[in-house]
Amino acid sequence: MKKITAMGGGTGTFVVLSGLKKYEVDLGVIVNMMDSGGSTGRLRVQLGVLPPGDIRQCFVALSEAPDLWRRLFLYRFETGDLEGHNFGNIFISALEKVSKNYEEVLETAGFVLKTKGKVLPVTHEKTHLCVEYENGKVIKGEGSIDENRFEKSRIKTAFLEPSVSAYPSALERVLDSDMIVIGPGDLYTTIIPLFLVNGMQEALQKTKAKLVYVVNLMTKSGQTVNYSARDHLTDIEKYIGRPVDSIIIHKGIIDEHIVEWYVSHNEQRVVDDLGSDTRVIHADIADNTPVLHNKADKIASYARSILRHDGNRLAKAVVQLL
Amino acid sequence: MKKITAMGGGTGTFVVLSGLKKYEVDLGVIVNMMDSGGSTGRLRVQLGVLPPGDIRQCFVALSEAPDLWRRLFLYRFETGDLEGHNFGNIFISALEKVSKNYEEVLETAGFVLKTKGKVLPVTHEKTHLCVEYENGKVIKGEGSIDENRFEKSRIKTAFLEPSVSAYPSALERVLDSDMIVIGPGDLYTTIIPLFLVNGMQEALQKTKAKLVYVVNLMTKSGQTVNYSARDHLTDIEKYIGRPVDSIIIHKGIIDEHIVEWYVSHNEQRVVDDLGSDTRVIHADIADNTPVLHNKADKIASYARSILRHDGNRLAKAVVQLL
Repeated sequence: MKKITAMGGGTGTFVVLSGLKKYEVDLGVIVNMMDSGGSTGRLRVQLGVLPPGDIRQCFVALSEAPDLWRRLFLYRFETGDLEGHNFGNIFISALEKVSKNYEEVLETAGFVLKTKGKVLPVTHEKTHLCVEYENGKVIKGEGSIDENRFEKSRIKTAFLEPSVSAYPSALERVLDSDMIVIGPGDLYTTIIPLFLVNGMQEALQKTKAKLVYVVNLMTKSGQTVNYSARDHLTDIEKYIGRPVDSIIIHKGIIDEHIVEWYVSHNEQRVVDDLGSDTRVIHADIADNTPVLHNKADKIASYARSILRHDGNRLAKAVVQLL
Repeated sequence: MKKITAMGGGTGTFVVLSGLKKYEVDLGVIVNMMDSGGSTGRLRVQLGVLPPGDIRQCFVALSEAPDLWRRLFLYRFETGDLEGHNFGNIFISALEKVSKNYEEVLETAGFVLKTKGKVLPVTHEKTHLCVEYENGKVIKGEGSIDENRFEKSRIKTAFLEPSVSAYPSALERVLDSDMIVIGPGDLYTTIIPLFLVNGMQEALQKTKAKLVYVVNLMTKSGQTVNYSARDHLTDIEKYIGRPVDSIIIHKGIIDEHIVEWYVSHNEQRVVDDLGSDTRVIHADIADNTPVLHNKADKIASYARSILRHDGNRLAKAVVQLL
């Protein structure tokens, strides 16, 4: 069975996994552990746990548990002491508190959610993402970078503080996969941090796996302002230290109301300037039904995105590259 | 297989169930749903859910899940937004939010915790316990009654507001049990409310089950000040409307340091004045190892008790009456 590994952590990865799990493949995901915003950030600071949010999303995406169970793990409290906290985040955090190590957390969560596939944190050491902009400004913490949304200067460099080692099982997974799917996801706050843990760049350079990069649909204020597809790709390859093998990019319409919403948030469709690059696969993979959020989402320091890739069509494009 | 049903909800019932589940019996529990203090009370008010605390304790008591899982459901957060909240309470509350009815909550919790036996809420309607003292004072809410711990006047009457109906499956369980074990537990805030839901008194009068009452070890300030064993029994029988068949009471030492702790909280050992009552079974059933609480327990408006019955010895005394 072919071994496919997604790398990411946010809703983009949720979509990739939801699509790929319908195929007969050995599926895994390597998850960003640098989130520090919203419910996750508060739990991190208040309880001293690793960030639970992205891990939880991946477990739910790969879950084959009954629908009620999946709804439970995505449920966000709307009032009281728990306002804005997601049940799944609380579950992972409490589990970390009573478990003897993080392996036990992962095993138990996988068992409870009847997960099809392997969820691997990129590291199980605590660290924070930092970025330095071209104007010299340095920001520490994923949540604070997300909040710095009116920043026009480009990010010059990203690094982790403190530097941490990759989770050994994640490195093994990279080395023995047939394909690695990078993105979609916020370029600097979700994807690039994965390459910054010690050992990951070397593993990605060494692996025989095909590296597939899925280009984002929209730019993101504060981190990829006016970024074209080529700009995204350049930064990805800079932090991996090698070219990717394939690039999947959306070709087709994006609903104008959705585009307007993004424009009002100083964001826009990623311009496809990849030209005649022979590695590029064009596919109609945007889901033009906007995502509605519940009112508890107001805890998010920044409005969440409303456009997603279509999991089934994206997975089909990915699997054709196997 | 003999059908035994415990009635209660607090730590006393946890002990009874933990002991009885080691026997080959059809075990069930009918649980108080009037708790309004601590974490449970806050979740009740803030989320509009039924009180989760006693239900959760019973599920854990009957659980045959791995130890880690039981520890998780008893875990209490010590810091931050979640301070003082028990994970299991949060779990039951979120489950109620995403389930279509309370049956689904009970089924799912039972499945997840691999519960051996049946957990039945005494009602699934929302209500509050009220008491009127002999001095005319009326207090509404279990939590407020618990807080009124310097009250010296005796409770004249207890009632529910609004009045609610018993959960039909709980009534069925009462009717077709071989034995019903009442208590131990706080007389007015845990045990008596069970008899106040519409239909329960009639069912207890009609059942062929043997009614076994387990007398508390210590008095409780604010509700059973200076109560002897006979006083407890009199009130129990008043609210059931019939005599019980057997009475189990501790005969043996209670460690003097434990007694001192209670005296400093204006509580004392329940005096055994049951004399030659032929229904009485004396047994050495106190667990003289004091219960230690973690620091998050400070959320409880009133110091928790430190003395418990011994589950194994109590269960042995109960089963001998079958």
